[in-house]
Amino acid sequence: MYALGAKRSVIRELFEYGKKRKAEVGEDRVYDFSLGNPSVPPPKEVKECLMRLLDTPNETALHGYTSAQGDRGVRATIAANYADRYGFALDAELMYMTCGAAASLTITLNAIVSSADDEIVTFAPFFPEYRVFTEKAGAKLIAVPPAEGLDIDVEAFAAALNEHTRAVIINSPNNPSGVVYSEEKVKAVAEVLRAASRKYGAPIYLISDEPYRALIFDGKVAPCLPAYYRDTIVCYSYSKALSLPGERIGYIAVSPLAAGSNELYLAVCGAGRALGYVCAPSLFQFLVKECDLLTGDINAYRENRDILYGALTEYGFTCAYPSGAFYLFVKSPTGNAADLAEAAKAEDVLVVPSDSFGCAGYVRIAYCVSKEMIQKSLPAFEKIARKLGLKK
Amino acid sequence: MYALGAKRSVIRELFEYGKKRKAEVGEDRVYDFSLGNPSVPPPKEVKECLMRLLDTPNETALHGYTSAQGDRGVRATIAANYADRYGFALDAELMYMTCGAAASLTITLNAIVSSADDEIVTFAPFFPEYRVFTEKAGAKLIAVPPAEGLDIDVEAFAAALNEHTRAVIINSPNNPSGVVYSEEKVKAVAEVLRAASRKYGAPIYLISDEPYRALIFDGKVAPCLPAYYRDTIVCYSYSKALSLPGERIGYIAVSPLAAGSNELYLAVCGAGRALGYVCAPSLFQFLVKECDLLTGDINAYRENRDILYGALTEYGFTCAYPSGAFYLFVKSPTGNAADLAEAAKAEDVLVVPSDSFGCAGYVRIAYCVSKEMIQKSLPAFEKIARKLGLKK
Repeated sequence: MYALGAKRSVIRELFEYGKKRKAEVGEDRVYDFSLGNPSVPPPKEVKECLMRLLDTPNETALHGYTSAQGDRGVRATIAANYADRYGFALDAELMYMTCGAAASLTITLNAIVSSADDEIVTFAPFFPEYRVFTEKAGAKLIAVPPAEGLDIDVEAFAAALNEHTRAVIINSPNNPSGVVYSEEKVKAVAEVLRAASRKYGAPIYLISDEPYRALIFDGKVAPCLPAYYRDTIVCYSYSKALSLPGERIGYIAVSPLAAGSNELYLAVCGAGRALGYVCAPSLFQFLVKECDLLTGDINAYRENRDILYGALTEYGFTCAYPSGAFYLFVKSPTGNAADLAEAAKAEDVLVVPSDSFGCAGYVRIAYCVSKEMIQKSLPAFEKIARKLGLKK
Repeated sequence: MYALGAKRSVIRELFEYGKKRKAEVGEDRVYDFSLGNPSVPPPKEVKECLMRLLDTPNETALHGYTSAQGDRGVRATIAANYADRYGFALDAELMYMTCGAAASLTITLNAIVSSADDEIVTFAPFFPEYRVFTEKAGAKLIAVPPAEGLDIDVEAFAAALNEHTRAVIINSPNNPSGVVYSEEKVKAVAEVLRAASRKYGAPIYLISDEPYRALIFDGKVAPCLPAYYRDTIVCYSYSKALSLPGERIGYIAVSPLAAGSNELYLAVCGAGRALGYVCAPSLFQFLVKECDLLTGDINAYRENRDILYGALTEYGFTCAYPSGAFYLFVKSPTGNAADLAEAAKAEDVLVVPSDSFGCAGYVRIAYCVSKEMIQKSLPAFEKIARKLGLKK
């Protein structure tokens, strides 16, 4: 635990460097693309709804303990909304409100892992905390290298599964690449999982980590995973969609079709209890009941993407096309992530080298920043491209 | 994890029974004393402050990620208030904002425990989740039986320490007894800990779980533990003082005097990260900055205590005098907790049998309920006393 505390995540480290550097050279001279902190304000209904809730006469209920799994009315509303939107029926009795995506994942992993031999498989590039959460839960994280375009390599995925595989974490739209996996790929993943579950005689759970589900552009829709694979656990967070990352609110939904869904759900409840999650924050439970279907202004993110993706590819950079979230994953021209990250840092452009994402040779650019900052940063990116020999 | 989810805590189980029973016989016919859910509303400043915060122009900062350890300004204010009130200087750089008391404890225990041989000692009677949290962190919980009056038995405590003891959890005012340990007892505990730390060549940490610190009556003050023992970690929660148990907000403070305080603090940060606590809920961090020194109307609790303690002792029950919190711990006349709990249940009086508190032969009465309910319940208590042969 000391090592985890002393060595912060690379992302947080860079963010802290950015704060220091801004103090030295000025706020607007540093282009900080390190952190996935939404730049768009919450939808206006969030404030209105919070004000209205605070004006209810029964304050002790508003701020009191809910059931450990979350208020029943809140869960029922979210399940009904999910059915309307995705055409798939979740069961409120198999849903568990959480303190955000990280809690959704740690609780789910602690519910599933039962032996030090257990393996959790995920697709590179992946959110670095997956490794921290998996190892703390007592299992090993296995990363499947990507195919062309940072897409899923189905053969490599099939080869990564074995009798120790307990679950697979999938993240679409993806952090750090912004890539949205196609329906075809999702079907192929489900087919591989069904075959492996049969072969090894036990269900391999699919953990769908989908905090960016609502941040998707170009009219695309991320496939609703429980509709493609029975043994799915949805891990959701409102942090990005409602721009409330500090408030820590999300949920776990065990698919009603999953093998042993009741037992699995009770294990989720047990893990939440043992990790110290008494209940999800009550005021924000009642808030998401009313704001579940809203999102912040995603057009602002799309516009940022268009400007930055357009400019970077024009300067000669290579980058998988991001259809969702608010990240670009850019190839380092030298094949070495540090070369690009350091060249950028020299221009006060802060981007995260990709090594901790399980995918060497890239940097992550979090473009959830102001459009103005993106526009002002373009000459710096052009200079970096020249320095690295991309642009004459 | 399944077992922990399937077998809820006895308290939660009884609370759910109460809800069902109320639906059958009527809300006001069931006297539910099972849950420590504050009955007093939050101080009026809480609503005012939340409204004011929501009206700030910078919503993305209000609801955004804070540092993992919590907003620096929030921690600095709490540290300054603590110094004013208790005359002891905490260090904001050794404080970590949490999602309430349970999170404070699980994060601290996971920071400290490093081997399956590790032992955590506590004083019976104790909050049953201590066992769940300690075992999930990978250690064994050792309970020291109480002395007369549910006080600390210093000799038994000294005998419980050995080379495997990593920490001691102390809880004053105590849940479930309401007892406040005296300064003299605290000094004796500190002396025993210093001797054992010397003897075994490593610091034994004192974890002060003090969510009831502000709920104390009769002009008493709970001793400020870091002032008596260097190697102290304060685990605080605002749930009870501000009547916000659903909102999950509290903190950990590593004493600046503790051995290896910086390393210990980094281990706390690492454990928080690995358990999925990204940051404490941001809106409520900013709230407690302004409301840190407030409490709800504790006179209401004191009045409840006086009525109930007076009546029960008059009916012949034996009960340690509770100077704080909102619990009475009543001896079963037969010596068997279930006898009293069942006799009470037959009168629709719900009280928690003490076995899971590590102290056989008692029941816990949570009197954080309306005064009206307490008054209406007295004839039922009198009847129970008669049935069990206490009152002719």
